[in-house]
Amino acid sequence: MVSYAIHVRVAELSRRSGVPVPTIKYYLREGLLPAGEFSSPNQARYGERHLRRLQLIRALLEIGRLPIVAIKDVLSDVDRPNPDIHYTLGKALMRVAGGPGTTDEAAVAEVDEFIAERGWLVGPDAPARQALAEVVSALRVLGHEAQVERLDDYAAAAQRMAEVDLEITGRHSDPDEIVYSALIGTVLGDAMIVALRHLAQEDASARTFGLSTAPEC
Amino acid sequence: MVSYAIHVRVAELSRRSGVPVPTIKYYLREGLLPAGEFSSPNQARYGERHLRRLQLIRALLEIGRLPIVAIKDVLSDVDRPNPDIHYTLGKALMRVAGGPGTTDEAAVAEVDEFIAERGWLVGPDAPARQALAEVVSALRVLGHEAQVERLDDYAAAAQRMAEVDLEITGRHSDPDEIVYSALIGTVLGDAMIVALRHLAQEDASARTFGLSTAPEC
Repeated sequence: MVSYAIHVRVAELSRRSGVPVPTIKYYLREGLLPAGEFSSPNQARYGERHLRRLQLIRALLEIGRLPIVAIKDVLSDVDRPNPDIHYTLGKALMRVAGGPGTTDEAAVAEVDEFIAERGWLVGPDAPARQALAEVVSALRVLGHEAQVERLDDYAAAAQRMAEVDLEITGRHSDPDEIVYSALIGTVLGDAMIVALRHLAQEDASARTFGLSTAPEC
Repeated sequence: MVSYAIHVRVAELSRRSGVPVPTIKYYLREGLLPAGEFSSPNQARYGERHLRRLQLIRALLEIGRLPIVAIKDVLSDVDRPNPDIHYTLGKALMRVAGGPGTTDEAAVAEVDEFIAERGWLVGPDAPARQALAEVVSALRVLGHEAQVERLDDYAAAAQRMAEVDLEITGRHSDPDEIVYSALIGTVLGDAMIVALRHLAQEDASARTFGLSTAPEC
């Protein structure tokens, strides 16, 4: 964590963070951003932690696409003293992963069995269970069972990614930093692994199909 | 591909696909769904390919979250006779992956160099380049460089996923089926790998943090 202190007015905080002043005031009113230090009744000053918090809110909004109410809930967990890290992470990830779920009971049962067979320690209410069941259901409806049959291969690669995630998160000892790091890593990491897969797909497609159809020149 | 023929009226097509009749009529007007066979001037009949097309549209809408105009464009490429597969895949993925991009030129250059070092065959305009640069930029702004430093580990896992993707897609010989399969696999696959990573993260978090804080019972 960057530890040098800044001590600026709201206009300068806005300039450094890229967040407009009215938006900063809205976050202050809503409790997403802690109050500044008042040097005089109308003169609040803000520091490094305000800048970091604004950067986190922007990332959750713009990249994680979380609604403000969900961000508020996640931040209140992050701010709790001595948080239960595994619980807080789980709740935060639940917000990020929240989806409509599926009513396809066969797909839900299939995913439950798959998780049990891999020996993954995952709570019964983890939203990723529902999210995965939704995908499995849609893949079957669309006649794309081949991808479901390879679930173990995808899971092995996902597990390798999660191990790297936890190596990075586990470097921190401060619980706040662990939760912060896991949130950033999960929200931005989702976008990262999707982008990496698309790049690798384009490469694999070029090698499989590109050279056979394009004229050599 | 399922080859048995059905030959039903629009109400039955709606029942089987779960898509309301007015929506089906909208897709017909917009050219997303090919016209049925007219047995009499007011009596169109629909077959298996209409059902499959409706399932694909639903998946692109609800899971890929593509706007109708993008789905129309993707489908017109899929429907073209003898499509250039690598080009069509690239364009379809471009729609799926489209994001705001970033103006952080240093991050763009870093991603370009990373792709070149891995030897990935990726076009200069691939939207995943921009998407990855956006993530790299945000990770640096948020002080989460550790994840950028492990990009090679994530890329290796993503490449393994893409190899499985192409093994599945490459089973087909009909170009239409290849594009269809790649679209489904990419759109649903994005949701699948994100869900798998979240499950694996929860497992890794439970193993790393859970046992030390939760009471044994």
